[in-house]
Amino acid sequence: MPTAYIITVGNELLIGRVVNTNAAWLASKLTYLGYSVRRIVVVPDVEEDIVEAFREAMAKADVVISTGGLGPTPDDITNLAFCKALGAEPVVNEEALKMVREKYASRGYPMTEERVKMAMMPPGAVPLPNPVGTAPGILYETGGKIVVLLPGVPREMEAIFEGYVEPLLKSRGPPAHFSERVVTVRGVPEADVAPIIREVMRQNPRVYVKSHPKGLEVDAPLLQIHIYASAPTPQEAEGAVDAALKKLVELIKSKFSNAAIY
Amino acid sequence: MPTAYIITVGNELLIGRVVNTNAAWLASKLTYLGYSVRRIVVVPDVEEDIVEAFREAMAKADVVISTGGLGPTPDDITNLAFCKALGAEPVVNEEALKMVREKYASRGYPMTEERVKMAMMPPGAVPLPNPVGTAPGILYETGGKIVVLLPGVPREMEAIFEGYVEPLLKSRGPPAHFSERVVTVRGVPEADVAPIIREVMRQNPRVYVKSHPKGLEVDAPLLQIHIYASAPTPQEAEGAVDAALKKLVELIKSKFSNAAIY
Repeated sequence: MPTAYIITVGNELLIGRVVNTNAAWLASKLTYLGYSVRRIVVVPDVEEDIVEAFREAMAKADVVISTGGLGPTPDDITNLAFCKALGAEPVVNEEALKMVREKYASRGYPMTEERVKMAMMPPGAVPLPNPVGTAPGILYETGGKIVVLLPGVPREMEAIFEGYVEPLLKSRGPPAHFSERVVTVRGVPEADVAPIIREVMRQNPRVYVKSHPKGLEVDAPLLQIHIYASAPTPQEAEGAVDAALKKLVELIKSKFSNAAIY
Repeated sequence: MPTAYIITVGNELLIGRVVNTNAAWLASKLTYLGYSVRRIVVVPDVEEDIVEAFREAMAKADVVISTGGLGPTPDDITNLAFCKALGAEPVVNEEALKMVREKYASRGYPMTEERVKMAMMPPGAVPLPNPVGTAPGILYETGGKIVVLLPGVPREMEAIFEGYVEPLLKSRGPPAHFSERVVTVRGVPEADVAPIIREVMRQNPRVYVKSHPKGLEVDAPLLQIHIYASAPTPQEAEGAVDAALKKLVELIKSKFSNAAIY
């Protein structure tokens, strides 16, 4: 299964001012596209940290997606730091410059140094049109790896991903399909469900089963059990999670007659 | 300024099923306690990844906080992976075992292998009572560094942090105070505010200023500008952000008479 890394750039995430919904959104998208997201990393608006994050991600993952740091302000430096991670000199991409210029020109704003910066990327990169904001996304491919830099504003990030990145990954991506089920179990402590989960996973090696406690383990146990699998076809993925779900419910019922399962 | 790393463990974060609110909550707490959070890392429930994350974090940060993987299920392995990262054999901590046993005994549940696992930690670690759930937190200090392992259930994580970790960090921590202000600016594109922000930061080197676009850059620009600083006393931190805010508003008003600032 091909792997993905997500890099989210921004001090606002590291001071806890913003919850990282971008990472969750991208992680879900990549998972359903058949990628195993191995790591999400949040780094500050500091060149050295961004460079290091890209280098590590590109060494370890097949697909790398970053968010944040493509805008016009002084601390938007992800495009420049990415060039540094590649050991490349940033160049003004003419196609990107045209995209940026047209956005501002439509309202009579002139081009400035800050606006030109949004068109800078490594040689060979492809700008991805931003239908919502001004900063284009950046697509860069090297040695079979795909790297995509997206803006941090959620609407812009989502629009570029859905418009350009998702179709690309679908056309290149693995023949993998993701399927999941959730079942709620009331009345059995998580610690007592643990051996059952282990048994279900032993019998269904393709399936991952994980319990999430939502109640009080001892006094009022309530678990959400999450079952998921990836397989080459949707049918196989769904068949695998359904078989595991059936076994799980069967085992819980046989051992804990008082359990409520829904 | 001392640094912190946050490690959040859990496949549910990497498949995008759960938004990482724990990381944002901890990041905010650590920031207000005077720490510079340098990285947030999300890793799967895989020993090798957790070991690597702890090793890297302990090499780079003064304080390391992890969430997740302390419970009774087979994929709760953060305590064991942490031991491996230290090169230590996990031992059953008697004090932790007593905490776990008492929780279950109160409802007549016996101890099982899965429950004993929740009391395993490296030699020399201190268990932190969990007032909400069953798995104790783990405090480990080495070479001036503080490492804390917390459960992934938000209510449990928050209760242990506020009950034990926050007081500890306050007593040991830096004499640093964090202060922030937010101002909203309507009618000026972010790219035109950029040089003003650069000037404000140049004049106020202790202060960080960052703009977050909330509207449409070209057609209906709306910015939230976030100003923050850390300083040895609350007065200095507040004085610094207030001075920067005043300068920022003054410069925007003088350059963009149509801007609405509130």
